[in-house]
Amino acid sequence: MFSHNKRLQYTVRVGASNPGLANLLLEQFGGPQGELAAAMRYFTQAVAEDDAGRKDMLFDIATEELSHLEVIGSLVAMLNKGAKGELAEGVDAAAEAYRKLQGAGNDSHLTQILYGGGPALINSGGQLWNAGYIDSIGDPACDLRSNIAAESRAKIVYERLINVTDDPGVKDALTFLMTREIAHQRSFEKALYSMQPNFPPGKLPGDPRVSAMYVNASQGEGDLRGPWNSDTHFEYLADPLAHIPVDGQEGVPSVQLNPAEKAAVEAMALRLASDPSADPLTGADLGSDAVLAETGGRAGGPMDRNSGANVDTLRRLGETPPT
Amino acid sequence: MFSHNKRLQYTVRVGASNPGLANLLLEQFGGPQGELAAAMRYFTQAVAEDDAGRKDMLFDIATEELSHLEVIGSLVAMLNKGAKGELAEGVDAAAEAYRKLQGAGNDSHLTQILYGGGPALINSGGQLWNAGYIDSIGDPACDLRSNIAAESRAKIVYERLINVTDDPGVKDALTFLMTREIAHQRSFEKALYSMQPNFPPGKLPGDPRVSAMYVNASQGEGDLRGPWNSDTHFEYLADPLAHIPVDGQEGVPSVQLNPAEKAAVEAMALRLASDPSADPLTGADLGSDAVLAETGGRAGGPMDRNSGANVDTLRRLGETPPT
Amino acid sequence: MFSHNKRLQYTVRVGASNPGLANLLLEQFGGPQGELAAAMRYFTQAVAEDDAGRKDMLFDIATEELSHLEVIGSLVAMLNKGAKGELAEGVDAAAEAYRKLQGAGNDSHLTQILYGGGPALINSGGQLWNAGYIDSIGDPACDLRSNIAAESRAKIVYERLINVTDDPGVKDALTFLMTREIAHQRSFEKALYSMQPNFPPGKLPGDPRVSAMYVNASQGEGDLRGPWNSDTHFEYLADPLAHIPVDGQEGVPSVQLNPAEKAAVEAMALRLASDPSADPLTGADLGSDAVLAETGGRAGGPMDRNSGANVDTLRRLGETPPT
Amino acid sequence: MFSHNKRLQYTVRVGASNPGLANLLLEQFGGPQGELAAAMRYFTQAVAEDDAGRKDMLFDIATEELSHLEVIGSLVAMLNKGAKGELAEGVDAAAEAYRKLQGAGNDSHLTQILYGGGPALINSGGQLWNAGYIDSIGDPACDLRSNIAAESRAKIVYERLINVTDDPGVKDALTFLMTREIAHQRSFEKALYSMQPNFPPGKLPGDPRVSAMYVNASQGEGDLRGPWNSDTHFEYLADPLAHIPVDGQEGVPSVQLNPAEKAAVEAMALRLASDPSADPLTGADLGSDAVLAETGGRAGGPMDRNSGANVDTLRRLGETPPT
Amino acid sequence: MFSHNKRLQYTVRVGASNPGLANLLLEQFGGPQGELAAAMRYFTQAVAEDDAGRKDMLFDIATEELSHLEVIGSLVAMLNKGAKGELAEGVDAAAEAYRKLQGAGNDSHLTQILYGGGPALINSGGQLWNAGYIDSIGDPACDLRSNIAAESRAKIVYERLINVTDDPGVKDALTFLMTREIAHQRSFEKALYSMQPNFPPGKLPGDPRVSAMYVNASQGEGDLRGPWNSDTHFEYLADPLAHIPVDGQEGVPSVQLNPAEKAAVEAMALRLASDPSADPLTGADLGSDAVLAETGGRAGGPMDRNSGANVDTLRRLGETPPT
Amino acid sequence: MFSHNKRLQYTVRVGASNPGLANLLLEQFGGPQGELAAAMRYFTQAVAEDDAGRKDMLFDIATEELSHLEVIGSLVAMLNKGAKGELAEGVDAAAEAYRKLQGAGNDSHLTQILYGGGPALINSGGQLWNAGYIDSIGDPACDLRSNIAAESRAKIVYERLINVTDDPGVKDALTFLMTREIAHQRSFEKALYSMQPNFPPGKLPGDPRVSAMYVNASQGEGDLRGPWNSDTHFEYLADPLAHIPVDGQEGVPSVQLNPAEKAAVEAMALRLASDPSADPLTGADLGSDAVLAETGGRAGGPMDRNSGANVDTLRRLGETPPT
Repeated sequence: MFSHNKRLQYTVRVGASNPGLANLLLEQFGGPQGELAAAMRYFTQAVAEDDAGRKDMLFDIATEELSHLEVIGSLVAMLNKGAKGELAEGVDAAAEAYRKLQGAGNDSHLTQILYGGGPALINSGGQLWNAGYIDSIGDPACDLRSNIAAESRAKIVYERLINVTDDPGVKDALTFLMTREIAHQRSFEKALYSMQPNFPPGKLPGDPRVSAMYVNASQGEGDLRGPWNSDTHFEYLADPLAHIPVDGQEGVPSVQLNPAEKAAVEAMALRLASDPSADPLTGADLGSDAVLAETGGRAGGPMDRNSGANVDTLRRLGETPPT
Repeated sequence: MFSHNKRLQYTVRVGASNPGLANLLLEQFGGPQGELAAAMRYFTQAVAEDDAGRKDMLFDIATEELSHLEVIGSLVAMLNKGAKGELAEGVDAAAEAYRKLQGAGNDSHLTQILYGGGPALINSGGQLWNAGYIDSIGDPACDLRSNIAAESRAKIVYERLINVTDDPGVKDALTFLMTREIAHQRSFEKALYSMQPNFPPGKLPGDPRVSAMYVNASQGEGDLRGPWNSDTHFEYLADPLAHIPVDGQEGVPSVQLNPAEKAAVEAMALRLASDPSADPLTGADLGSDAVLAETGGRAGGPMDRNSGANVDTLRRLGETPPT
Repeated sequence: MFSHNKRLQYTVRVGASNPGLANLLLEQFGGPQGELAAAMRYFTQAVAEDDAGRKDMLFDIATEELSHLEVIGSLVAMLNKGAKGELAEGVDAAAEAYRKLQGAGNDSHLTQILYGGGPALINSGGQLWNAGYIDSIGDPACDLRSNIAAESRAKIVYERLINVTDDPGVKDALTFLMTREIAHQRSFEKALYSMQPNFPPGKLPGDPRVSAMYVNASQGEGDLRGPWNSDTHFEYLADPLAHIPVDGQEGVPSVQLNPAEKAAVEAMALRLASDPSADPLTGADLGSDAVLAETGGRAGGPMDRNSGANVDTLRRLGETPPT
Repeated sequence: MFSHNKRLQYTVRVGASNPGLANLLLEQFGGPQGELAAAMRYFTQAVAEDDAGRKDMLFDIATEELSHLEVIGSLVAMLNKGAKGELAEGVDAAAEAYRKLQGAGNDSHLTQILYGGGPALINSGGQLWNAGYIDSIGDPACDLRSNIAAESRAKIVYERLINVTDDPGVKDALTFLMTREIAHQRSFEKALYSMQPNFPPGKLPGDPRVSAMYVNASQGEGDLRGPWNSDTHFEYLADPLAHIPVDGQEGVPSVQLNPAEKAAVEAMALRLASDPSADPLTGADLGSDAVLAETGGRAGGPMDRNSGANVDTLRRLGETPPT
Repeated sequence: MFSHNKRLQYTVRVGASNPGLANLLLEQFGGPQGELAAAMRYFTQAVAEDDAGRKDMLFDIATEELSHLEVIGSLVAMLNKGAKGELAEGVDAAAEAYRKLQGAGNDSHLTQILYGGGPALINSGGQLWNAGYIDSIGDPACDLRSNIAAESRAKIVYERLINVTDDPGVKDALTFLMTREIAHQRSFEKALYSMQPNFPPGKLPGDPRVSAMYVNASQGEGDLRGPWNSDTHFEYLADPLAHIPVDGQEGVPSVQLNPAEKAAVEAMALRLASDPSADPLTGADLGSDAVLAETGGRAGGPMDRNSGANVDTLRRLGETPPT
Repeated sequence: MFSHNKRLQYTVRVGASNPGLANLLLEQFGGPQGELAAAMRYFTQAVAEDDAGRKDMLFDIATEELSHLEVIGSLVAMLNKGAKGELAEGVDAAAEAYRKLQGAGNDSHLTQILYGGGPALINSGGQLWNAGYIDSIGDPACDLRSNIAAESRAKIVYERLINVTDDPGVKDALTFLMTREIAHQRSFEKALYSMQPNFPPGKLPGDPRVSAMYVNASQGEGDLRGPWNSDTHFEYLADPLAHIPVDGQEGVPSVQLNPAEKAAVEAMALRLASDPSADPLTGADLGSDAVLAETGGRAGGPMDRNSGANVDTLRRLGETPPT
């Protein structure tokens, strides 16, 4: 069960109204690397987790991310507060109100007009938050890796926001939030490696014939060898086209159909067959500039398809017109 | 520049039509852990990458994932081929066609009716593929971690599909695809650790006061200590409520408004103030069962608000009716 | 700041595994009327709210909804737990595993294969939760109405789920959750009417000429008068076509363009003009059955457009072929 | 059946081209509170409604909303008309065209480049309209409340747009549209209360033990009592943690598994167990700054893991390296 | 199987950094008319296609579109490269960095902050690419028409982008990409018409009674006749209301219910019946300005519902208050 | 302005309740090829169109599509009516209600539980309708082609539905709707070709060097020549790799950076450089099965990294452990 205390986990002090900055901060409120995604990622894992240690850790961090959602949301609310009041009360003349709205820049118009200055669960471009941002699949060896990656991404997005902010209070709160991502990544790393083995995840072993193969699928100048495709650890397939398919069979898809299916498939094939030897007149030909150019173009209105010139044109273009 | 050879990277041999299984396999065609997500994840990183080694590797693996998309798509097409032909040609009586469609189970009806039996970029529940599945953010220390996690997830989803398939040809192709995820994860791991340092990502250091703090935000029975919150590596905040806010300040959000903003905000507050001492009649009261029960309910039609009984009822419910 | 206690707000006791029911319950976990939508709806309003009373209430209810999200998520996790274990460990032969998966019915295959049996933020059809489910706009007279409506909807979806469940523990927990929606609706109603006036919302008055007009836009048998269009409260526009436009002007859209714009618009109009007097041959004609029927159809391969018969056909169809 | 008359319900006269304003108006064309959402909300309810009076009203208002969609769409088309012509005809030099496009501000670039100046079913931030904006659930006591709330929201978004517009013709048409929302809300209110009882919706009664309980889930300074949690109407649970779970049972989730399920679940638990007593080396350690700092950092290339210094470092960091 | 060569199909030379232009170009990377949509449209068709000729063509063009995706992606990457470096390295003071970010205009802030300057699969407004952009349905007579239309659209979006670009290298590459759409459209047209017949698609014939009917559903000034509704090819239904329904039956929906269903439907109708003769007090009345105006408004706090004036007001408004 | 008549354009008579069929029909209500997509496609084009003839036609057909939306929606409502009543009134015991719900099959559970049996704007798999289904771009030569393609697709989806339905009334109404798509396609074809020229669309000519080039990007067995790549109409590039890039330049992307940008880009490259000569220990190694196998695996708990065996293992795997 959750509880709430009306104090923030970290104090939010904003120096001045700035709807443009508020909109950028939405990235960490309702964006893919933001705090709701983090909280829900860990919360859904926690609910389904059976391992007591991981379950506790996931609830700890999920809960803290909710508190971070509150901190970043409060930053957005404070940065928008003045503009929100002015628009709601209609204090400015329309032209001035329009100028302010446009002047705040980026997508802050959306926050003002549609969301009334409140923190909305969108990214800084207005894209609605969606649960496709959460990649949990119910296997801890995967989910912990996903969490590690997610924390690293959140750290960087905070870093970028800090780089474009000079309000000390905002910078301070963002630095707190950024730092906590580092700590969380550390915990998830510890949890991953305290479960052994964790690689490869799951129970089914790979096929040893291809589990260390490296396919040099991109060829040409720029080909490079490194630890990721070294002969020490990988079998380097330098020319994949020479090994197609890798199973050495025919490399084409097939299915065994029952007689009724086979008959239907063949009937469909016959009905929809293309004729490689045809040279059909097409819709593009009917509307083509080239035809018009020959016939004097648009002068006199649309194409006169009855003129002999038109037939000549079709002939020259390689079409055989009806005679 | 991309090229294509009409042979598959791995031969696809399907034993019998099975639209229900085809639909499940869509998970790895148009699902979040599927091959398009993988291909586009690495391709978009490759295009933006400046490091020659990583760029080459990313193009190699992105290209191979496109070949895997072709393999899984061919499995789907083969499994659906018979049913597609029969529906397109209308060979069955309607009742039989309906029975077959329903009988195939899960969401295969969608593949048949809407997508005509072709491999569609949806997951097995019909959710359209969207680019929110891709979490690249343009920093290699993050993106490589995201790739590592993504490969581990794809491995497991293949494992689950293999567990529910007994067609040998399908199982064989899925095992190939699953194994390649293991190999790709290995390459991404090597690439991550051949870039040093890679943790924490980015340039800005964390705030040392909170970078090793662990917040025991979830309390109660089940609290557990482990490597993820050990005293060796973390400062364990056992009772977070005792440290709120962690910065020791007031813990409430604030913003400095200019006078015009302040006036507007105050006007809005006044206009929209709630009255804590009110005891208003509400819409719910107007439509409430309780009121009706007292007045004889629905007999005789809707509530007769003119009856004295009604007033009594309102009184009993704690409302003060107009007198 | 949020805290968590590992006890649930309401005890969850599930009588037997049932992935099909688990999937239906997702409706209230990651569906539009579910607990995440509720929690985030009130939380985002709370963060932006300045009125102390409403802010407190919104945080109270938002926090409780998070606890409900945990209860419903735990129901899903328990109902899926057995199936999850069996699939992850691969304990069944493939054919049996496939049979179980299909047999559980509805979209539970998605929960199993993609999400590994965990509670996912999707509705029961697999649609990803998205923030478009939240309709807060930052005005309390609107947001409270939205909250009232949302609580009423959630009540009904719980009622439907209860109607299809006979597991006593599940029924019990769902009844708790359903009842709390009733209580929350009551609170939001009280809050709405303790702010006066609240109708119409906002500051701008409506245009009195049309603010009580009722437009009988749907005509014919079935027209009915009632309190929603009574003469007592509305001006009933019985025949809207007789009052078009309602402003009595020309009823067509216009814009004043500057000369450069005007020139461009006219050039575009000329370039893209359709010719009402044309009788063009079209792409549909080129591929039409009717033409083929006349010429002997598909016998002998695709249409032979050089035959005289073809020209006759075009003539009969009303097209004037090139001569 | 629908009919259309080419006159608008309200005349649209735009004073001058303004793609920036056009883009803002999209909010009420393809935004969540816009006219398509309104029309489809009522239309889908109308089709399924059996009560003659409500059905008629819903068709009346749905149809009028389609006419409003036409009015707002015409405003957008007129405001964009000049810019559309200039871009389509390529009348400006590229640099000038780019300057104009950027200068129009907000997301109007999207309307111009992607949608060619036409009214698109997006909100002002480019988010595609989706049916998640419609919250109808097929119960009139809920749907009417949803409609009431929706009308109030639309009223406010129009008010905000009016506040930033000084084109008299635009203002005039927006005022008409805003006013109609007020009238529609009145009708929906009348319809709701002419159905008795309507609260709580549905047939299942709530559990009386918790239907008037108010959970003070958010604690601390700022706690406030008001009509929404008054002792008159609610049982105020001041300290929810003291009543967890509210049912007085164990408060933990449980499920009865059959033996095969139980065995699988236990096997999975064993396989994926974390070791609370471990102190594993992690991926973060392998890429950590701290290690590098001790060993001389990046001078001389990536970390030399063979050096004794490195081992010392690991020791100091609390890791036990292999010996 | 796919291969890749690290050379581009067309050389990309960008004259200067321009994140604003980069963001516009995303339209053809991750937008609905962009290269990923094209590649996936043809690729998914190719995989399911059985006709050898079409299959080969679809793979040819799908593969080329992937190469175009690489070209447009490289343009985006080059245009962003400088800004990406500066933001990642934090070389500017925060105020200057913010100024640059805002100054680049349109939605380029999203590319910078969220995606780190890499090409993201979004359109120029930030909308995530989704597979709903692909309209393939598995029938070649439809899919080829869809492809023809898609190529024409892509051509125009490139044309618009060329119109706002004066960087010669960018213009050059865009012109190449635009031209290839023309060539592809020609191929798809040839393929469509080499399959005969192709109109109407499918096997089921239309009902001849309505297959050439034109319904003049939009009436009034502006009605126009042209080839699309000419008497030569269509039966023009001038006054559709006179032919409603067109089948000459009752024009109302009906269903035959079994007795149990019928009983349930009737019970529901009774429970939820509205009363056309009611004149209920509503929630809007409870919060209405008009009431307050009569009672002295907000002076002295919220509405005093106990005052006689209030009752009078309700009476004047047409409500019958409890007495 | 729109009007409505409560009679349907075509009578709907449903023989028996069938929620499973109802759900399939949603494809044409809220699916991508359905009637809302059609109506909105033409309506949005109509509003922005300046050509009088096309504008009238687009309004005619848009309006008729709204009437079709009503017909298909009424089919859905009738097929669901019985089940809706039974679920709402709770007439069945829970087990029986669950059995009915599951037995109806496909995704009809979603329609029942979430949408209460009403027609929802989703496809038959539950995917929310979204405006990405509409591909209008504001150029008639493109939009008319898009409309032609859309009508052909809708025809086929209706044909598939008819093939699985044996309720005569349903079949009849679907045949009407299917036929109207044929008629609409004819009108759009006429409109396209009455505008000359219409190919290629737009004003900018293609680059003649590549406008007739055909790129044989997919190689190998199955290469086929046909009208779509014939020498008559195309320049066939048999071996694209021999012409890379087609412009004969260097084929690599480049950008001219200013000195500050260049410095930042180089700093970033240095900071994030990978070391091709490294052979780093990775996270996968730390969690690898292979290591555990050598050291006795999980016996005795997680990997004991202090054992000499472990070091030996790392050595055998090609890693150089710290000494």
